[in-house]
Amino acid sequence: MRTSEEYVEKLRKMRKNVFIDGELVERDSPELLPSIRVLSKTFDLVDDSEFKDLITATSRLTGEVTNRFTHINRSADDLLKKQRMIRKACHLTGGCIQRCMGCDAINALSFVTYELDKAYGSKYHERFVKYLEYFQKNDLTAAAAQTDVKGDRSLRPHEQKDPDLYVHVVEKREDGIVVRGAKNHITMAAIADEIICLPTRAMKEEDADYAVAFAVPADSDGVKLITHVANPRPRKAFKAPIANFGFADSFVVFDDLFVPWERVFMCGEWPLAALLAHGFALYHRHSYTGCKPAVTDMVTGASALVAEYQGIADKPHVRSKLAHLVSVAELVYSAGIASAVEGQQHESDTFIPNTVYANVGRRHAGLNIYHEYEILTDLAGGLPATLPFEGDFVNPKTKQYLEKYIMRKEDVSPENIHLCFRLLSDMLCSSLSGVSANAGVHGGGSPIMEEIIITGTYDFEEKKKIAKYLAGIEGN
Amino acid sequence: MRTSEEYVEKLRKMRKNVFIDGELVERDSPELLPSIRVLSKTFDLVDDSEFKDLITATSRLTGEVTNRFTHINRSADDLLKKQRMIRKACHLTGGCIQRCMGCDAINALSFVTYELDKAYGSKYHERFVKYLEYFQKNDLTAAAAQTDVKGDRSLRPHEQKDPDLYVHVVEKREDGIVVRGAKNHITMAAIADEIICLPTRAMKEEDADYAVAFAVPADSDGVKLITHVANPRPRKAFKAPIANFGFADSFVVFDDLFVPWERVFMCGEWPLAALLAHGFALYHRHSYTGCKPAVTDMVTGASALVAEYQGIADKPHVRSKLAHLVSVAELVYSAGIASAVEGQQHESDTFIPNTVYANVGRRHAGLNIYHEYEILTDLAGGLPATLPFEGDFVNPKTKQYLEKYIMRKEDVSPENIHLCFRLLSDMLCSSLSGVSANAGVHGGGSPIMEEIIITGTYDFEEKKKIAKYLAGIEGN
Amino acid sequence: MRTSEEYVEKLRKMRKNVFIDGELVERDSPELLPSIRVLSKTFDLVDDSEFKDLITATSRLTGEVTNRFTHINRSADDLLKKQRMIRKACHLTGGCIQRCMGCDAINALSFVTYELDKAYGSKYHERFVKYLEYFQKNDLTAAAAQTDVKGDRSLRPHEQKDPDLYVHVVEKREDGIVVRGAKNHITMAAIADEIICLPTRAMKEEDADYAVAFAVPADSDGVKLITHVANPRPRKAFKAPIANFGFADSFVVFDDLFVPWERVFMCGEWPLAALLAHGFALYHRHSYTGCKPAVTDMVTGASALVAEYQGIADKPHVRSKLAHLVSVAELVYSAGIASAVEGQQHESDTFIPNTVYANVGRRHAGLNIYHEYEILTDLAGGLPATLPFEGDFVNPKTKQYLEKYIMRKEDVSPENIHLCFRLLSDMLCSSLSGVSANAGVHGGGSPIMEEIIITGTYDFEEKKKIAKYLAGIEGN
Amino acid sequence: MRTSEEYVEKLRKMRKNVFIDGELVERDSPELLPSIRVLSKTFDLVDDSEFKDLITATSRLTGEVTNRFTHINRSADDLLKKQRMIRKACHLTGGCIQRCMGCDAINALSFVTYELDKAYGSKYHERFVKYLEYFQKNDLTAAAAQTDVKGDRSLRPHEQKDPDLYVHVVEKREDGIVVRGAKNHITMAAIADEIICLPTRAMKEEDADYAVAFAVPADSDGVKLITHVANPRPRKAFKAPIANFGFADSFVVFDDLFVPWERVFMCGEWPLAALLAHGFALYHRHSYTGCKPAVTDMVTGASALVAEYQGIADKPHVRSKLAHLVSVAELVYSAGIASAVEGQQHESDTFIPNTVYANVGRRHAGLNIYHEYEILTDLAGGLPATLPFEGDFVNPKTKQYLEKYIMRKEDVSPENIHLCFRLLSDMLCSSLSGVSANAGVHGGGSPIMEEIIITGTYDFEEKKKIAKYLAGIEGN
Repeated sequence: MRTSEEYVEKLRKMRKNVFIDGELVERDSPELLPSIRVLSKTFDLVDDSEFKDLITATSRLTGEVTNRFTHINRSADDLLKKQRMIRKACHLTGGCIQRCMGCDAINALSFVTYELDKAYGSKYHERFVKYLEYFQKNDLTAAAAQTDVKGDRSLRPHEQKDPDLYVHVVEKREDGIVVRGAKNHITMAAIADEIICLPTRAMKEEDADYAVAFAVPADSDGVKLITHVANPRPRKAFKAPIANFGFADSFVVFDDLFVPWERVFMCGEWPLAALLAHGFALYHRHSYTGCKPAVTDMVTGASALVAEYQGIADKPHVRSKLAHLVSVAELVYSAGIASAVEGQQHESDTFIPNTVYANVGRRHAGLNIYHEYEILTDLAGGLPATLPFEGDFVNPKTKQYLEKYIMRKEDVSPENIHLCFRLLSDMLCSSLSGVSANAGVHGGGSPIMEEIIITGTYDFEEKKKIAKYLAGIEGN
Repeated sequence: MRTSEEYVEKLRKMRKNVFIDGELVERDSPELLPSIRVLSKTFDLVDDSEFKDLITATSRLTGEVTNRFTHINRSADDLLKKQRMIRKACHLTGGCIQRCMGCDAINALSFVTYELDKAYGSKYHERFVKYLEYFQKNDLTAAAAQTDVKGDRSLRPHEQKDPDLYVHVVEKREDGIVVRGAKNHITMAAIADEIICLPTRAMKEEDADYAVAFAVPADSDGVKLITHVANPRPRKAFKAPIANFGFADSFVVFDDLFVPWERVFMCGEWPLAALLAHGFALYHRHSYTGCKPAVTDMVTGASALVAEYQGIADKPHVRSKLAHLVSVAELVYSAGIASAVEGQQHESDTFIPNTVYANVGRRHAGLNIYHEYEILTDLAGGLPATLPFEGDFVNPKTKQYLEKYIMRKEDVSPENIHLCFRLLSDMLCSSLSGVSANAGVHGGGSPIMEEIIITGTYDFEEKKKIAKYLAGIEGN
Repeated sequence: MRTSEEYVEKLRKMRKNVFIDGELVERDSPELLPSIRVLSKTFDLVDDSEFKDLITATSRLTGEVTNRFTHINRSADDLLKKQRMIRKACHLTGGCIQRCMGCDAINALSFVTYELDKAYGSKYHERFVKYLEYFQKNDLTAAAAQTDVKGDRSLRPHEQKDPDLYVHVVEKREDGIVVRGAKNHITMAAIADEIICLPTRAMKEEDADYAVAFAVPADSDGVKLITHVANPRPRKAFKAPIANFGFADSFVVFDDLFVPWERVFMCGEWPLAALLAHGFALYHRHSYTGCKPAVTDMVTGASALVAEYQGIADKPHVRSKLAHLVSVAELVYSAGIASAVEGQQHESDTFIPNTVYANVGRRHAGLNIYHEYEILTDLAGGLPATLPFEGDFVNPKTKQYLEKYIMRKEDVSPENIHLCFRLLSDMLCSSLSGVSANAGVHGGGSPIMEEIIITGTYDFEEKKKIAKYLAGIEGN
Repeated sequence: MRTSEEYVEKLRKMRKNVFIDGELVERDSPELLPSIRVLSKTFDLVDDSEFKDLITATSRLTGEVTNRFTHINRSADDLLKKQRMIRKACHLTGGCIQRCMGCDAINALSFVTYELDKAYGSKYHERFVKYLEYFQKNDLTAAAAQTDVKGDRSLRPHEQKDPDLYVHVVEKREDGIVVRGAKNHITMAAIADEIICLPTRAMKEEDADYAVAFAVPADSDGVKLITHVANPRPRKAFKAPIANFGFADSFVVFDDLFVPWERVFMCGEWPLAALLAHGFALYHRHSYTGCKPAVTDMVTGASALVAEYQGIADKPHVRSKLAHLVSVAELVYSAGIASAVEGQQHESDTFIPNTVYANVGRRHAGLNIYHEYEILTDLAGGLPATLPFEGDFVNPKTKQYLEKYIMRKEDVSPENIHLCFRLLSDMLCSSLSGVSANAGVHGGGSPIMEEIIITGTYDFEEKKKIAKYLAGIEGN
C-alpha cells in the first residue's frame, strides 16, 4: 500500500490538465491542498491502530492486504465494515472522505461486466479483473465520472441538438475507442490517479453510442479538468482541523479522448446501461449511509456543544432537537446495515447491497440535511452569522471587549467559546457550508432519484394484495 | 401447542370479571370476538406452511418446539425472526397481532430477574424460569400491564394525594403480597390467560412500594377488567376481513389483589425498576419495528390500489407519496434489523435489542402515522367520508345509480371499486381507525418517550469530541 | 326571515326522495336531525344578541334585512363579516355551519351570469336576480352541487365511456332543459330547500353540454338523494353539544331532471364554465378561512384544556404545540382578511375575494388538519382511544374505580375529566372525527386543487424579473 | 429629505470607531460599501416614480413630507404602505433594506414614552417628540441596538457574574447617564447616523438599572463598533446587482458611554421594560412581513427561472414546490395585512400592529427559510455548488467547453444560463447566503421568541370555553 507522500509525489508528476479560475495549475497547487489532505487520510489511516482493521481488507484476487477503498465487497460483513470505516473517517475530514467514489465504481463494474459477458459473450469481466489487479497493486484512487451535462432535460441523449451533451463514442478503432462529451460535478477528479467513466442513465437502442464505460489516467491527453474548489475559509490565527479540508469538483471534458480496449468496460450494450448506472448508484448510496451519519454526527456534536456552552443543554426543546438529529443519523445508518444484511451474493463473487434499503436511507439523509443545519442554526443563535473576524480577537483594543462579552458558562473559557462559534460559522455561514448542504441533497443522487428507484423496484403488487385481501376484493 | 379452539374454550371457563358498558360479560361475548379472532391467528398460523418456520421456536428450557410468542430470544436471529413474523402476521389481522405484549414482558423479566438476583441475592430468576416453563408448556397468552393511571403528571408515585394512583404493594404476607392500583390502556387483558404487571417508570427510594412486578391469571379475585372495545363497523352484506378484527383495551383494577410469592418478580428493589420498565419498552419497541411497517404496508397497498382504480397511479405526485410510505415502512423495519444485529447477549442467555435503534425506529413510526393516513386520504378523495351505506348498494332502486356512477377504470368492476372504498372508509373514517391512529402514536410509548430514552442513552460526549476536534478546542 | 321551526316545518312537507342505507326516509328522520340542528342555528342566531349584527345584512335588491347566508357580498367589509360570522357560528356547531355553500353559489352566479350576458348577450343575470329575490325573501337554504362523479380521472367529460359521468344537458326544450348525471359528496342536500348545480371544471368545446348551471327545489322529480350521514356517537347518560351535530352528504342523482329556463344560469357557454367553477370555489375557499380556524379553535381549546387537566400546560413542548395550533388558525384567518382587503369590486356590484390569498389560506388549512389532530392526540395520551363506555361510569360497581383512578389535577372533578376525555374521544376516535379530517383535507377543494389555482394565476413573470435583475440577465 | 450623496458625505465625517478584522476603518471603507449601497437606496427611491408615493409620508409633527423610514405610523393604511414599501425595496437590494430598524425603534418609543409618562409622570414623551422632530428634519438613519450579549442564558441580568453582560446604567448624573455593556448582531450600526438602544427583555425590580433606553450618534465617545461584514462574492467579469449588496453587523460596545438626559427615553422604570422590548419587536416583526416575502419572491423567481432554463417548469413536482414558495410568501404577507387591519390606535396617535398576526407571520417565515433554500437547491441541481470560476468562462481555452456544455434550452444563451447559475451559487453557496439563512431564522426574533409572545398573549381561555361548551363541562 502507498503512503500519502507517495500519492502526492505521483500527483506532482502528472501532466498539467487542471484549470482553476482561468489558470492551468499543478495538481499540488494550494487551491487543491484541502482536497489532497482528505485523500491523504485514506493512506495515513492504514497505520492508525483505531482504523487499521477497518481500512484494510484481503484481496481475493491477489491474496494480499489492500486498502479497503480498492476492495471488492464479497460479503455482508464487507459492506458493514465499509460503512463503519466511512463514518469514522468522515469524522476526521469534516464530512466527506471522497475516495469511496472509485471504490463504488469498481464494485459496480465487478458484477456488471460479468453480466455483460453472460449476455453478450464479451470479455469485459476478464479485462476488468486485470484492471482491478493493477488498481489494487498500485493502491490507486479514482474519480467516478457519471453525471453528464444533459442539455435539455426533457430529451434523451440521442435527441439533443448537440449530440455531445452526453458522453459518447465517436469512433471505434482497432486499438480502442474515441469518446467525446463532458461530465459534471466530478468530485476529486483533479486529485485522482484515474477517472472511471460510467453511463448516467438507462439507454434505448438509439442511444447505443452513449452506453459506454471505461477507465483512464486522469491526466490523459484529451481530458481537461475545469475545477471548482470549495475550500474552507483560511484561518490566520486560530487554526482548526475544520479549516484544513475541502472539495474539488471538476467539469470533466473528454475532447476526443482515446481509450485502449483493455480499459473499455462497456461499449454499445445499451440494454445494460441502466444496470451499470444504477449499480454504481447503489454502491454509492450505500456509502452515503456511512458518510451522511458522519455529517449528522458533526451537526449533533456541534449542537450539543453549543447548547452546553449556552447553558441550555437540558431544555426540553433542545433535547427534542438533539433526538431528531440522532434519529436521522441512526435511521440512515440502520438502512445501510439492513442493506448489507439483506444484500445478495452475485455469481461474480461480488456482494450487492439491497436496493430498497440503500435508497430509503440515502433519501432520508437527503431530505433532512437542510433541516439539520436549521437545527444547528436555531441552537446557535445569530453569532455564527455576525462573529467578528479573527483580527478583532487579536487586536488588544478589541480583544478585551470580545473576551469579556462573549462569556457564557462560567467554566468555559472565552477562547473555547470563540473557537466553538468560529466552527459554527464555518459549518453554517461559509461558502463551503453551502456546498456541503448542496452535496447533502444531490450527491449520489437527490431524493427524487431515490424515489424513482424505490417506486420502480418495490413490490407494490404484494402490498396491493394485502389491501385486496382485507377489502375482500377478488380479481382486478 | 394449543389450538385456537382450546384457547377459546379456556376463555369460556374463566371467572367473569370483564365489564363492558356497564355490564359484566362473558369472555366470549360478541363484543370481544373481533379481538379473540386476532389472538386465534397466533395459534392457527402454526399450521400454516408460510408461517410455520417463523412462528415456532425451540425452547432452550424444555427442548420442545413452542410458539415464538412464548419464546425467549437467544440471538440476533431470534429477534430478526420475531420481527418478520410480526410484520407478516399483522397483514392478516389488520395491523396488530396483540400477543407480542406478553412475549416482550417475559423477555424483559428474563434478564432483569437475573440482574435482580445479582444485585440482591434474591431468587427471582429461578422463580421466573419456573413460570416461563409453565407459560411455554401451556402455550399461554399474557397482557402486559405497565401504564399506571398516574394522577397528577407532575408528581412522583409517592407524592400523589391518593397513593393508589400508581400500583403498589399494600401488604407483604408470608405467602405473598397484596397490591392495589390500576393500569390503563391494557390491550388484550380481557382475552388473555395471564396478566403480567410491570413498573411504568424509574423509581426513587420513597417509591419502593411501587417497584413491583408479578404475573396473575387474568380472572384472579381482585382483578376487574373495565374494557373498551374498538371493533370494526359490522358488515351486513359485503363481508371483508378488515371487518373481522378489533381491539379490546382494559382499565385493569387491582383491588387488593393477592399474589403468591412464586409469581412475584420484583418487590421493592426500586433501583432496578427503571431497568424493567425500559427493558419491557425496549422489547416492545423492537416488536413495533415489525407491526408498524405492517400498518404502513396496509396503507401503502390501499394507496396503490385506490390510485390504480382512480387511474392516477403513474402521476408523479402519487409516486412520490408512495415512495414516502415505502420509506417509512422500510426505515422503521431497518431500525429493527439494526437493533437485532447490534444487540447484545446477556449473561442470562437472553438476547437484548440495541436501545438506540429500537427507539429511533419506534419514534419514526409514531411521528409518521398521522401523515400516512393523510396520504391515503389525499389519494382516496372524499368518498371514504361520504360513501353511501351498504343498504343503498343492495336496494335495487339506488343500486342501479351507485353502480353506474361509481365506475372509474373500465376494467375494474363497480363491486370492486365499492369494496375498495368501503375498506378505505373503515381504514380512515371509522372509530376503529381513530383508535388505530392513536395507538400508532402512543402504543409502546409515544415519540416523546423514545426521545427521552434516546437522549438519555446516546453517547453525546463522543459527538462533542468530534466537534471539539474539528474546532481545535482543548479542555471544556 | 324564517324561524328554524318554519324551516323544519317546510322540510317535513317535501317530497320523499332521500335514501339512507336502503330506506326511503322523511327529511326529519332521526338520522338527519344532527344536520338539521346545524342549519337551525343559522335561523336561531338571528335573535342572538352576540350574532345579530353579524348574521344579518341589508339586501341591496329589496332594501330589507336578510340573513347574511342569502346575501351578495358588496364590499370587503361584507366578506370580513361573513368570515367572522362563520368562525363564530362554527364554534357552536362543532366545526361546520354548512349553509355557506348556497351563499357561495349565489355569489359566484351573481358575477358570472353578468359576464355571460356581456359575452353572449344572454339574459342570465336578469333571471338570476329574480331567483335571488325569491331566495332572499323566502330565506332559503341551498346545497351547491358541484363535484361530478368523474369516472376515469384521466379523461375529459365528453371522453368518458359513459357520457353521464359528468352532469350534462340531454335535451333542450322550449320550456327548459333536461339534465342527467350525478354529483358526489353534496353536503346538506338532504336538508336543503334548493339544490344549485354548477360545473366542476373548465370545459372545452366538445364538452359544451356539460357547461350547465341551474337551481331546483331539492325534492324535484328527477332528483334522488342517496345520503350518507356522519352523526356523532349517541350519548346515553352524559349529554354534550358535541354529540348534537353531524353531517349529511348526498350522492345527488339527476335522472332526466327537467329544469325550467328561468332557473337555468348557464347552458352550453363552455368558455365560461371555468369562471363559474372557480368562482364558486373562490367564495367557498374564502368561507373556509372562517370555518377552518374555528375547527382549529376547537382543537386548540381541547388541547389547552386537556393539558391543563393533565398538569402539563406549562411544559415547553406543550406551549410550542399550542403556538403551532394558534399559528395555523390565525394564518388561515389572515389569508381570509387579506383576500377581502385585496378583493375587487365587480361591475355587477358583487365583491370578489382575492384569489391567491383565499387559495393559500385554504391550502394551509388542508395541509395542517391531520397534524392538528396529531397534536391533540399527542397531548391527550391514549385515553381517547381506550376510555371505558358510558355505562361503566354509571354502574356503581365500576364507577367507583373509574372516578378514583381518572383523577388528575386535584381541583378538577372526575366528572369533568371524564367529560373532557369523552369529548376528545368523539373528536379523535369516532367515525365522525374521521369524516371531519377528510373534510378538512378535501372539502372545498384539496390542497392540490389550490396549488393548481395558485400556480395558474400567480404572476411568476414578475418574480422571474426580480431574479433576472439580480443576476444581471437580459433577454430570455 | 437627504440625497444618498449627502448621507455618505456625513458618514465620511464621522469619528472613526469602526473596527473590522483588527483594523480601525473609515465608514466609507470598501468593506462597508455593499451595506452603504443598501441604505443609499432608501434615499434614492424617493425620486423613483414607482416608489415615490410609498416611500414618503407627511409628518403629523412638522406637516412636511418625510421619508417613510422616519415616519410614525398613524393608521392601518400607514402600516400597509410600510409593508408594501419594504417588500418592493427589498427586491432591489437582494432581500434586506435595513433602515426599518430605526423606524421600528421610533415607533415603539412613540407609544411607550407616552405610557411611561402616564405611569410615572415623567417627560419622556416630550423629549422623544423633540428627538423625533430632529430625526425627521435631518432624515436620519438609526440602528436599533436591542440584543444584549446575555452571558449565561439561565440567569437574569442582575444575576450574571459580570454585571455588564446586559447594558445598564452605571451612573446617573445631573446632565445625563453613563451606561456600560454590549449589544450583539446590530445591523447597520457601522453605517448609521444614530444608535437607538432598547432593553432586550422583561425586567424585575432587581434589574432596574438594566431598564434603559436612549439614542446617541453612532460615533459618540464611548461607542466602539466591532463589525462583521457579510459581503457578496466579488465579481470580476460578470457584474450583477446581487453582487452589490451586503450586511454589516456590529458588536456594539458601550464603554462608559455618557448620554445626556434629552436623549434618554427610559431609565429604571423596569415594569415597562417589557412593553418597550416587545413594542420594538412587534413593529419589527411587522416589518418582516414585508421583507421576508421579498426574500421568498427572490427564491420563487430564481426557482421559476432555473426550472424554465432546465426545461422542467411544467413538471408537477416543480409546480407543487413553486406553490409552496408562493404560499409562504403570501401567508406571511397576509399576516402583515391582518396585523395592520386588526391593529389599534394608541392615545399617543401611534398605530400599533396586532400582536398575534405579526407574530404568527414572522414565525411562519422563520420556520420556512431553510426549506425555501432547500427547494431552490433541489430545482437547481448541483451546479450552484460546482460552477467553475469566472476566469474559466473568460479564458478561451476553457470558455469554449463551458459554453458548449452548459447549454440547456435551445432558446436561452449560454451566457444567461451561466449568469443564472452564478446567481444561484451566490444565493445558495456563498458565505452571504449562510448569513441570510441565519438572519431568516433569527433576525427580529427566532420562531421560539414568537411562540413565547403568541402563547403569552393569546386568549386561550376563550378557546377552552369552546371546548368546555362542546364537552358539556361546567366549572373548572
